[in-house]
Amino acid sequence: MVEGTSVYDIEGQRVGKILNFMVNKHSGQVEYAVMSFGGFLGMGEDHYPLPWKKLKYVVARHGFVVDIDKDSLANAPKHDRGNEPVYDAAFGTMISSHYGVA
Amino acid sequence: MVEGTSVYDIEGQRVGKILNFMVNKHSGQVEYAVMSFGGFLGMGEDHYPLPWKKLKYVVARHGFVVDIDKDSLANAPKHDRGNEPVYDAAFGTMISSHYGVA
Repeated sequence: MVEGTSVYDIEGQRVGKILNFMVNKHSGQVEYAVMSFGGFLGMGEDHYPLPWKKLKYVVARHGFVVDIDKDSLANAPKHDRGNEPVYDAAFGTMISSHYGVA
Repeated sequence: MVEGTSVYDIEGQRVGKILNFMVNKHSGQVEYAVMSFGGFLGMGEDHYPLPWKKLKYVVARHGFVVDIDKDSLANAPKHDRGNEPVYDAAFGTMISSHYGVA
């Protein structure tokens, strides 16, 4: 399973873990990974949907490295547990735009 | 979420639902979907890892159609809840071989 895999920032600090994925039902490609950044910057247990393209799996770390600066994350789209958004096209555009991916 | 999505056989009968996915950590591509075929052919609640290539999402059904005949499924690799296999390369080869996908 990939759920529970640790997530690190680009400086090597563990910042959270993966909760689950949003998978494109047609292609089978993960589009978003939802991560919990518990305690990171004092933001508690909020959940952050991140574009898959921003994740890189690093074998030596057994975890994902996210190439996202803290300013981007501080005002990033997030939600509480149990308040998952609808992952429709408009949501995808909003997330991609925030993180600057195509 | 895709977990819980219904699965149908090619004749249109609902045979189970998706439990979870095995995702390639590098590519983000789903390699296997684990399905529960509860009650199907009297096989109870066993879990079947299926190659993603054998699934097709059908919008009109809001579900996946599996192009697998019942003989293939009857002797397919399966496991009980809580006895998940290790999804390594050898396991992948075994599953792909059983279902005849590259």
